[in-house]
Amino acid sequence: MIELYWKNATSQVIGPDHGITPGELSGLGDRMAAAQRAVDGQVRQGKLGYTTLPARRDYRDGVAALVAKLRPWCGDLVVLGIGGSALGNIALQTALNPITYNLQSDASRGGPRLFVLDNVDPTLLKDTLSLLSRRLNKTVFNVISKSGETAETASQFMIIRELLRDRLGNEFSKHIVATTDAEKGTLNKIARQDGYEMLIVPGDVGGRFSVLSQVGLFSAAMCGIDIDALLAGAAAMADRCTAADWTSNPACMLAAVQFLAYTTKGKPMHVMMPYSNRLYLLADWYRQLWAESLGKAVHRNGQPAFVGPTPIKALGTTDQHSQVQLYREGPNDKLVIFVEVEKHPEEVRIPEVFAEAPGLAYLAKQKMSKLLNAEKIATEYALAKSQRPSVTIRWPAITPENVGAFIYLYEYTTSLMGELLDIDAYDQPAVELGKQATFALMGRQGFEEVAKEMRPFIKPDKKYLL
Amino acid sequence: MIELYWKNATSQVIGPDHGITPGELSGLGDRMAAAQRAVDGQVRQGKLGYTTLPARRDYRDGVAALVAKLRPWCGDLVVLGIGGSALGNIALQTALNPITYNLQSDASRGGPRLFVLDNVDPTLLKDTLSLLSRRLNKTVFNVISKSGETAETASQFMIIRELLRDRLGNEFSKHIVATTDAEKGTLNKIARQDGYEMLIVPGDVGGRFSVLSQVGLFSAAMCGIDIDALLAGAAAMADRCTAADWTSNPACMLAAVQFLAYTTKGKPMHVMMPYSNRLYLLADWYRQLWAESLGKAVHRNGQPAFVGPTPIKALGTTDQHSQVQLYREGPNDKLVIFVEVEKHPEEVRIPEVFAEAPGLAYLAKQKMSKLLNAEKIATEYALAKSQRPSVTIRWPAITPENVGAFIYLYEYTTSLMGELLDIDAYDQPAVELGKQATFALMGRQGFEEVAKEMRPFIKPDKKYLL
Repeated sequence: MIELYWKNATSQVIGPDHGITPGELSGLGDRMAAAQRAVDGQVRQGKLGYTTLPARRDYRDGVAALVAKLRPWCGDLVVLGIGGSALGNIALQTALNPITYNLQSDASRGGPRLFVLDNVDPTLLKDTLSLLSRRLNKTVFNVISKSGETAETASQFMIIRELLRDRLGNEFSKHIVATTDAEKGTLNKIARQDGYEMLIVPGDVGGRFSVLSQVGLFSAAMCGIDIDALLAGAAAMADRCTAADWTSNPACMLAAVQFLAYTTKGKPMHVMMPYSNRLYLLADWYRQLWAESLGKAVHRNGQPAFVGPTPIKALGTTDQHSQVQLYREGPNDKLVIFVEVEKHPEEVRIPEVFAEAPGLAYLAKQKMSKLLNAEKIATEYALAKSQRPSVTIRWPAITPENVGAFIYLYEYTTSLMGELLDIDAYDQPAVELGKQATFALMGRQGFEEVAKEMRPFIKPDKKYLL
Repeated sequence: MIELYWKNATSQVIGPDHGITPGELSGLGDRMAAAQRAVDGQVRQGKLGYTTLPARRDYRDGVAALVAKLRPWCGDLVVLGIGGSALGNIALQTALNPITYNLQSDASRGGPRLFVLDNVDPTLLKDTLSLLSRRLNKTVFNVISKSGETAETASQFMIIRELLRDRLGNEFSKHIVATTDAEKGTLNKIARQDGYEMLIVPGDVGGRFSVLSQVGLFSAAMCGIDIDALLAGAAAMADRCTAADWTSNPACMLAAVQFLAYTTKGKPMHVMMPYSNRLYLLADWYRQLWAESLGKAVHRNGQPAFVGPTPIKALGTTDQHSQVQLYREGPNDKLVIFVEVEKHPEEVRIPEVFAEAPGLAYLAKQKMSKLLNAEKIATEYALAKSQRPSVTIRWPAITPENVGAFIYLYEYTTSLMGELLDIDAYDQPAVELGKQATFALMGRQGFEEVAKEMRPFIKPDKKYLL
């Protein structure tokens, strides 16, 4: 079971300037109770669609049926999606399959290679398509977009549909799975016309909360990940997150620590630092969840807010040799969220060699996982000695259950944080202007006024160019 | 030629609260002149070894000779290194070779596959070794460590040397290249005893400034990267960085903007955001350079400092769907450093399809690179509309020359920043305690006192575990 350890964020360990005091914690009680009530109420009113996902057998069964049909012949799976239609897919794959998965032979892998093309970099697309060129007859493209009008995903999709038609003729539509709105929208329409297999982006779940819907489950199941275990882990965590006593509720305590660190301890940066390469990209999923949900200019009553902790990703031990100098000696402005794995998927033992080198003798005969986990404790200790707060999310092992639990834990914590910060955690109004500006630059009709206003930004002013 | 564009960090565009005013800039003049003099002086006195690297023919020739010897038979190259012995290698490889490089067939790649194992995660090591198991006779391991006692690199090396001896017998030493101190240290000694090929970690260049030494050049040249062009680009930038008029010197202006943003405009977070997947991991190299060099607790006179902007990496367009909501509506506490490429290595044109979908018509017949670069300008514009400062580092194309120039630009800028902040940019004292704590936990002799002090950190206190 995933556990939260928060002692090293307390005043007892790092003093009251930077550590949370018992008084601050108990002082949060009423507010936390209100947040719990509010979120519980939203769940009961059916407003938080993501909380229903662990129990959605229909979504799960739809994925399983499609996987049974496609997996026997699929050698490569390419996800076309961005943001919430990509980060969860990447996180599941990297957490639960070998680091070298795509490099293994077709025979030794459990499923197709997976490519998630979450950018419109032409080099990314061209390089990937060159690689797949001779295997297109075994390739499935999963285009994920609620509306079908996300510029990045739509442009990739337009290119790939044309390529498939050109190369595979009438068979092309068998190579596309559209994950989109169940009833309406551009992609829904195209998918029906062309006759693609279809999966659903739930109407009541925002993109960044959608990983446990068909958005994330399909690519995971195609690559052999046990999605039942994933959902079971999320369901088990959902139970823990509804515990009434907030001091024994992991979502409440995590929200409490991150909220108090942010609001009263001057810690605007919340660094997630897994000590595991496999879990590193879960931190990218967390970055979106945290940044888009909590980075808001207004409170729910319309008053200015401009709040939001900045989520940062780091990797242990790697970033000990990159970031920890700053984390210990720079401004005391960070909360570090360690992610620690007790039993790693693989183990290697260090042999007894170089007996004549005194600086290496201590490594002989030790497990490499012991070194990795020792370095985590060492960093935690070193941070504490500099009065820098940290919490640890402890995983007994990297399993689909624990990945599901971790995801649900952070989603629910985000809902609570939205209440504590008194902002709307489910919109993203600031993204709109960039979209309009892109339309303007691409010459879309109706955006001529924006284009005019953007003129000073298009050509660099030579006075400031060197 | 790489150019710096800084208009969108000025008060003219985003107002005086968050933008740099002409007065603030001219007010920095004396201090910048002093910083330039100080760094120039250090260069002339031979104190900044990294500035000599672009002209070190001996280092370059040593690499070229070794590459000529190994490349004909090497199918896989594995770098064992961490921090400055890994991040530069990764950045060069990802910037200058195809994104799918390791996935291509041996025949279509220009050189060996490259694996940089910059962590002691046993799963990373085991997965990689499983993949290489049948190809060890074609594999070269490049172990990079100045002393040979870096725990992460040493433990990997111990495992791999044993494996190679076991599998290849007396031939094993031909499969190891040691990049280490030229004269002394544990790895130097082992390399001589075992008879490895050797390359040099220069004694006068810190790890995070070492990418243009044999540390970074060997893996790059093995993978077909033109290291002469890389060094030439760095040399050309070195010339530009010594321009006396600081307002036309890119390193000075970059330092000025980042320094003023940090000290007077309340921007503790400096986000590097390339609009190119190939250049994304240059941001990891920047993260180490910036964090370890500038995150310091004391000024050079010993007075408390606790300074250092936090470097953050982001990727355009991808992070528009993850971070930009926060960047625009959260606290105005970031400076964004865009990295923009004018001509991308590959191009794809969007076809004219879905004429019946009005929301997609504007994409038809457009180049994908146009969309990518339009989104960059759109984001820059959207940030400016919210009074958020940004600068852009413009690359005409992704070439070895421009990678070399970018690296040198940031190294020199870091030296200037060290002067402006009045800290020692070349040490990393805060890393020491973590190392000692690791020794203590691993049972190394002489660290019993630290082990005792760490006791409360080893076993979780159940009271804070849930």
